[in-house]
Amino acid sequence: MAATNPIITLLSDFGVSDPYAGMIKGVILSIAPQARVVDLTNDIARHQILEGAVALEAAYRYFPKGTTHLAVVDPGVGTTRRAVACRASDWFFVAPDNGLLTFILQAHSDFQMVSLEDPAFRLPKVSRTFAGRDIFAPAAAHLANGVLLEAIGPPVTDPVMLEVPRPVLREGGIEAHILYIDRFGNCITDLREEEFESWHQGKGRRDIVMRAGESLIRGLSQSYNEAAEGNPLALFSSSQRLEIAMNQGNAARRLSLAAGDTIKLTLV
Amino acid sequence: MAATNPIITLLSDFGVSDPYAGMIKGVILSIAPQARVVDLTNDIARHQILEGAVALEAAYRYFPKGTTHLAVVDPGVGTTRRAVACRASDWFFVAPDNGLLTFILQAHSDFQMVSLEDPAFRLPKVSRTFAGRDIFAPAAAHLANGVLLEAIGPPVTDPVMLEVPRPVLREGGIEAHILYIDRFGNCITDLREEEFESWHQGKGRRDIVMRAGESLIRGLSQSYNEAAEGNPLALFSSSQRLEIAMNQGNAARRLSLAAGDTIKLTLV
Amino acid sequence: MAATNPIITLLSDFGVSDPYAGMIKGVILSIAPQARVVDLTNDIARHQILEGAVALEAAYRYFPKGTTHLAVVDPGVGTTRRAVACRASDWFFVAPDNGLLTFILQAHSDFQMVSLEDPAFRLPKVSRTFAGRDIFAPAAAHLANGVLLEAIGPPVTDPVMLEVPRPVLREGGIEAHILYIDRFGNCITDLREEEFESWHQGKGRRDIVMRAGESLIRGLSQSYNEAAEGNPLALFSSSQRLEIAMNQGNAARRLSLAAGDTIKLTLV
Repeated sequence: MAATNPIITLLSDFGVSDPYAGMIKGVILSIAPQARVVDLTNDIARHQILEGAVALEAAYRYFPKGTTHLAVVDPGVGTTRRAVACRASDWFFVAPDNGLLTFILQAHSDFQMVSLEDPAFRLPKVSRTFAGRDIFAPAAAHLANGVLLEAIGPPVTDPVMLEVPRPVLREGGIEAHILYIDRFGNCITDLREEEFESWHQGKGRRDIVMRAGESLIRGLSQSYNEAAEGNPLALFSSSQRLEIAMNQGNAARRLSLAAGDTIKLTLV
Repeated sequence: MAATNPIITLLSDFGVSDPYAGMIKGVILSIAPQARVVDLTNDIARHQILEGAVALEAAYRYFPKGTTHLAVVDPGVGTTRRAVACRASDWFFVAPDNGLLTFILQAHSDFQMVSLEDPAFRLPKVSRTFAGRDIFAPAAAHLANGVLLEAIGPPVTDPVMLEVPRPVLREGGIEAHILYIDRFGNCITDLREEEFESWHQGKGRRDIVMRAGESLIRGLSQSYNEAAEGNPLALFSSSQRLEIAMNQGNAARRLSLAAGDTIKLTLV
Repeated sequence: MAATNPIITLLSDFGVSDPYAGMIKGVILSIAPQARVVDLTNDIARHQILEGAVALEAAYRYFPKGTTHLAVVDPGVGTTRRAVACRASDWFFVAPDNGLLTFILQAHSDFQMVSLEDPAFRLPKVSRTFAGRDIFAPAAAHLANGVLLEAIGPPVTDPVMLEVPRPVLREGGIEAHILYIDRFGNCITDLREEEFESWHQGKGRRDIVMRAGESLIRGLSQSYNEAAEGNPLALFSSSQRLEIAMNQGNAARRLSLAAGDTIKLTLV
């Protein structure tokens, strides 16, 4: 059964200058006139699937159950990569099968996924360069209209998963990796608070120090203002991941940090 | 008769940093509380009417019939240039009379257009620097409320049209021109697929080669991945125009192409 | 009583690349499913409270009465700075208590304000780094649901106010100050049209000249096109403030003007 005003979010690398995200909204509203389309962001760096995957994971659960999350970072458009829709817990996702849903599928291993092959749920004319408009948007709109996931295509059980960095937890320390840098220069890593907590408990909660680039950061902060202005700090972010930040400053720029870099955490 | 939740799209050069696009939405919702405002893009390059016209043409038809498209790229604000509203096929458009609607009017020669002169359909106080807020937004909202186009102002039969580049089709080849470069560096030209097809049929579908800047591109591709990574290619875009692109790269930057440049297509 | 489809606007410095603004919309729609969220802008320069305050003042009154304006430029997140909600005339505002509402409170001295301390109107888990999501968005959603302002927290009577520049009006001239520079390079000052008018009347409406950086501007224009292309001009902007602009050009860049700079206006 369709919700009265179903919500569809949009995450993409289409940018804000071109009308591509707008076209997708037009297609959705043509098929699901009562839907409400909400931008998560359309400014994921071009073709950066991991960046899109991190942003999607941070945001999806803040939307009401039943929300359909449409995610299009699609460097393989026009190739044989599959287009998929899935249900994970009480949310729906529509995306290219290229790893963009990796964190969602890891967190909800009982997901159900289908392949978007049925022409009935695509635009009548499908281009080979804009699947977001021609395949993904129609599928999201039909789901929002209450079409059953199972009705949209044949099941998929082997989705493509990104090889995402994983923190290495050792006796004497942890190697975390930067996954995502936000507009404030905050560097968000692959180390989750719960993983760290259980490791740290086993170490008797001894003090820790982190090496980020050339800088050493002692201890964890609770908020940005616990370091002096312009000084780096580490805390668990609002998405429960280890984050290297700087009070009133841009940590990534000032510490020359980039996605993929290692943050070494050691007991002292 | 007004739709239950009429859709108004917004295309402008107001950018995303200032509150100007937001103010326009406030005006619309004050007059048409049930309207839904959807951004096409607010990041058209400042005063670039042709860029706005190309983006509008690419997007308008993907919205439901009855949608009102509000387009404001208005370097002549405060001058005597007219403000207009029009119906073209089943869509409505509100814009300055400066050529922004050129492609719409070319495609729908039976358009009906009026001049926005009636103070009843403007804000009570009209500035001479922000017609988007004071004149265009109210007109769009009243149209969305179901006010008849004819009731909004006197008819206009001589709209300003841009002198847009037109491809030159000769026996031995075609000269196309770049109209628009998108965030991915894809260069979209004035050559439409149907024009090319009918020309190419007359040439027995002989092979073609295109010169784009210093590069030669042989043949047409169907999708971006048909060229090796970093190699240029040509295809008909999702808006059915000849497009010079690059697999996983930025064609405009790598080939030093800019809007206005000529792409020479020859038979081989 | 709650409106049928209450409007909540969002102004922030979250930028358009990260999913933070999207997460806030998810929280709002989870608590107030019928709300409509409209972006004023999410691209206020990082931590620039004055810039946010000017943008908010320019826009808020164009929205229907009853609208809730959610404004988050929050360099003090995680500190003891208060989180507040207020009613000013017929609009509601939710913001950090850091001066972001300065112009609103100056214009509506009979405002009512409360402190957002009641956990019932926050997310269950409150981070110390993202109050926009955990505290401000829920408060705005509950207000949109019709919860009474008084019910949300204890009264606040001493809000933090910015020390905003004020124009200096003397017998022989005025010193105005640039508050805000928009994407077009228009420089918007602290001199309001009504202040100027009453001063100018007292001077018999003698001619004036303005010094902006190295440039002299004689007299006031009514619209941008009254100066030759590339020449600077001065006018009262669409928000009724003295504005230094340039016909078809970027005044801030061409005249090397920045926020905080003084514009000297003298009688001639």
